[in-house]
Amino acid sequence: MRWNKISDAVIRRLPLYLRVLDDLAQESETEAISSQELGIRAGVGPALVRKDLAWFGEFGKQGVGYEIGFLRDELRKILNLDSRLAVGLVGVGSLGVALTRYHLKRFAEDASFNLQLEALFDSDLTKIGQSVEGVPVYGLEDIPRQVKEKGLKIVIITVPAQNAQDVANLFIKAGIQGILNFAPVKLKAPDTVHVVDTDVSLELQRLAYYVPKTTNG
Amino acid sequence: MRWNKISDAVIRRLPLYLRVLDDLAQESETEAISSQELGIRAGVGPALVRKDLAWFGEFGKQGVGYEIGFLRDELRKILNLDSRLAVGLVGVGSLGVALTRYHLKRFAEDASFNLQLEALFDSDLTKIGQSVEGVPVYGLEDIPRQVKEKGLKIVIITVPAQNAQDVANLFIKAGIQGILNFAPVKLKAPDTVHVVDTDVSLELQRLAYYVPKTTNG
Repeated sequence: MRWNKISDAVIRRLPLYLRVLDDLAQESETEAISSQELGIRAGVGPALVRKDLAWFGEFGKQGVGYEIGFLRDELRKILNLDSRLAVGLVGVGSLGVALTRYHLKRFAEDASFNLQLEALFDSDLTKIGQSVEGVPVYGLEDIPRQVKEKGLKIVIITVPAQNAQDVANLFIKAGIQGILNFAPVKLKAPDTVHVVDTDVSLELQRLAYYVPKTTNG
Repeated sequence: MRWNKISDAVIRRLPLYLRVLDDLAQESETEAISSQELGIRAGVGPALVRKDLAWFGEFGKQGVGYEIGFLRDELRKILNLDSRLAVGLVGVGSLGVALTRYHLKRFAEDASFNLQLEALFDSDLTKIGQSVEGVPVYGLEDIPRQVKEKGLKIVIITVPAQNAQDVANLFIKAGIQGILNFAPVKLKAPDTVHVVDTDVSLELQRLAYYVPKTTNG
């Protein structure tokens, strides 16, 4: 079952709600949460919380709010996170290694995270055959076989800008369905492949807008 | 001059346009670009390009499009990127080091990037007094003095989730105005401080939504 008409702005907030529910499930005995409280913890207005969740079903009860365990399970199903999803990463430089460590730590802390980093890729012969935190590094020529064997659905791209499109094409051809792109370049991909861009430079430039000009210095 | 009513969705796209113009200025002799072409390169519809830019002035000419150098300069002014903006980073772990390298590389390639990483901070005594790629590492007790002396306006937070709020509070108290937060936690900050969250786990979870379920495996 898919909900194709729902905007990405809604989808973008679902993991925020899930994170709040994950935290609550760990830290407290509370069984229900109001849209007000969920909104405050997720940094979203309560009316928007109710509207977002209403796209997917009737999860709340008037006067009670949302049952935490139930809503958490439902959000996991909606986000395809109720079973293991295999992830790859290409570009084993300092950012790639940092993300590998970060990812494995996240996974170790919460097995229900379900996004499992299974393979790394690089073109550097000195890195191929090695491993980072136990995750093996393969060459670019191994992409088709590893995507198939390990069932990789998502790839994280941390290669330099000038190589990003070529590398993306290899993964797209191999059947990957999602790309998390850290390279500072707009990737071309068919409609069947979803691309999320995470460019630190762009985020910083956006932040700069909100920093008022001062005349000192 | 500020444009306070403009939504963050608009501001979020301005650096995308700027990146296209920066690339064009380097790679070609073309002097003008249509909203159509600018849209394709930025991954935004041409009508939205025109609407976004119209918030800030009349930059385009009917039948000619946008003059690249002029629009680039105007976008830099709007984004406060027409002069140097000092940035700090706290949390010199593997992600912090990777971002430092990435940032300095970006800056070395394009001096007009203007976001300058000037100080790193950590609580680890073995790191304080050292430097990463030439950028000095200070202790947390040096935050007030360094923010003032170096005129830091933005801080990148790459500390563990459980320390992120405490560290953010120190920078907020010291007068920082923007936070780029990599810690997987929602930070509380006053309205005068703008926070942008970049959580890799959230981005991956969002991507998972777009990966169709398969029954093999």
